[in-house]
Amino acid sequence: MSNKKINVAICGYGNLGRGVERAIAKNPDMELVGIFTRRDPATVDSVMGASVYNICDLLSEECKEKIDVLILCGGSATDLPEQGPTFAGMYNTVDSFDTHAKIPEYFKVVNQMALGSGKTAIISTGWDPGMFSKNRLEIDAILPGANLYTFWGPGVSQGHSDAIRRINGVKDARQYTMPVEKAMNQVRDGENPVLSVRQKHTRVCYVVAEEGADTAGIEKAITTMPNYFDEYDTTVYFITEEEMREKHSGMPHGGSVIGCGVTGEGNNQVVEYSLKLASNPEFTGSVLVAYARAAYRMNQMGLCGAKTVFDVAPAMLSAKTHEEMIKML
Amino acid sequence: MSNKKINVAICGYGNLGRGVERAIAKNPDMELVGIFTRRDPATVDSVMGASVYNICDLLSEECKEKIDVLILCGGSATDLPEQGPTFAGMYNTVDSFDTHAKIPEYFKVVNQMALGSGKTAIISTGWDPGMFSKNRLEIDAILPGANLYTFWGPGVSQGHSDAIRRINGVKDARQYTMPVEKAMNQVRDGENPVLSVRQKHTRVCYVVAEEGADTAGIEKAITTMPNYFDEYDTTVYFITEEEMREKHSGMPHGGSVIGCGVTGEGNNQVVEYSLKLASNPEFTGSVLVAYARAAYRMNQMGLCGAKTVFDVAPAMLSAKTHEEMIKML
Repeated sequence: MSNKKINVAICGYGNLGRGVERAIAKNPDMELVGIFTRRDPATVDSVMGASVYNICDLLSEECKEKIDVLILCGGSATDLPEQGPTFAGMYNTVDSFDTHAKIPEYFKVVNQMALGSGKTAIISTGWDPGMFSKNRLEIDAILPGANLYTFWGPGVSQGHSDAIRRINGVKDARQYTMPVEKAMNQVRDGENPVLSVRQKHTRVCYVVAEEGADTAGIEKAITTMPNYFDEYDTTVYFITEEEMREKHSGMPHGGSVIGCGVTGEGNNQVVEYSLKLASNPEFTGSVLVAYARAAYRMNQMGLCGAKTVFDVAPAMLSAKTHEEMIKML
Repeated sequence: MSNKKINVAICGYGNLGRGVERAIAKNPDMELVGIFTRRDPATVDSVMGASVYNICDLLSEECKEKIDVLILCGGSATDLPEQGPTFAGMYNTVDSFDTHAKIPEYFKVVNQMALGSGKTAIISTGWDPGMFSKNRLEIDAILPGANLYTFWGPGVSQGHSDAIRRINGVKDARQYTMPVEKAMNQVRDGENPVLSVRQKHTRVCYVVAEEGADTAGIEKAITTMPNYFDEYDTTVYFITEEEMREKHSGMPHGGSVIGCGVTGEGNNQVVEYSLKLASNPEFTGSVLVAYARAAYRMNQMGLCGAKTVFDVAPAMLSAKTHEEMIKML
């Protein structure tokens, strides 16, 4: 690999964008060109002091020449469906598109644009989709017919927290998804249990109610909310704003992919990949940055079009030399 | 991918060869051409009824035409240093070469032979080296500077069992490598401990002594044996032949790779990949078979020479179609 630094830019500057910015600083083979935002750049302060530009500048020839990989840190609901294809028509990109049902369609349009521009776009990276998907695929390849289980948490779910915040009388809320230890241990012991939604995860909610709000009503609105909570055992705690700030301002998350297959005459083989993350966006950002290195290199090798974590060889992610890697075997 | 079955052959028929044979039977896109052995084929019974041939037949044009991938199941001490380069000069190969210090040299000679023949040789697969190496590399790429820990066991170590069997007065022996739970939990909790050899693993030995043997002498010979036991806390139990047969005839193994990195302002990020295997050779065999699929495909794509697990994209391992994979994201 050459000694040229990889010029990386960030598009979208929320929690994930900040996680990516911090991760780039830990990779000496990369340089952060700048952060591109839809907001007024003057109002955005970068955590590590990077330059902030208007997103429209990404259309300039100067940017196109300078930026080797653009990391898309927008949301999957409205940002990425538009930005993913558009920017794959101009840049090597990496994103964390995670609307599961729409991934095939998203892959298709991004692929068309990237093939047209001769760029490489690695979509749906992060940890799930991403590292978890990769492990599910690998376990299935090594142990055909293995039962695959995914447990999430303990961790904060942004979507579920937001759903609670929309209830009348709720000032703030934080929802934790908790895996059921007993179920996980059954899986680890090779019991291959059939598990309902309720048997795999529970939900714990911390809520700050507005003064005089009907807390019993709020609790009922949460626990019976369709899709979000009705299929789960949910516990609701009402706390003060102060307690919320002190104890629940982190963004921990994690989970496990567990595969259990059988070989030979009834030999259980259990594979587990698990994450315990103090900061979900900073870990996701770190994954995106490693895949940015891969996007740049794969493009250099002429591997254009949309790619997923399944298409990326581990060596592409690493800054190590071939000799250093061989020593790591 | 085409509908042609991948014709696979096994070279060397010990525990690993049997594991590979059983694994091939679970992969409908593969066909076992036969087992090739140095022994008299008439004396070898295959567990699944495959045809057994003399290893010299592998030099024939007929075999070279028929076999898509040859899985080398010999040992790393004497078989593979010779067979690896030789057969990479004729076949796509996969092996589990695991003499760590000699891997760079082995890679070099196998690479030369495979480049010369236009074949693809994936070396040092299995779980360590193999899946564990891959996870160490990936964690290091995602979390630069992360502390990487590898724990082995609980599991039977063949090399240590053999070392005990060579002691005077020992009729049979089985050695289990045990990870120290306390140390693993410190690592999982992000404490980044500095661990000595003794603090990471203990060794438990089950020994059948010959009648009238000096058991105290045997115990001392084991616990003080240089390289093998002297740096560990070792416990020795003397048992009967019957108990050995009943309780210690399996070949369980496993272990964990745990990486702990820090992102942002002191956020611990812990990644763990762990295996709990009822049969070590059957799992290793299953890994080799998945990499055999990759060797065949990579060769079809013109990717010749020696490769390692670092060079193989996850999609290469899987029998699933692109559409099926995208759905697994």
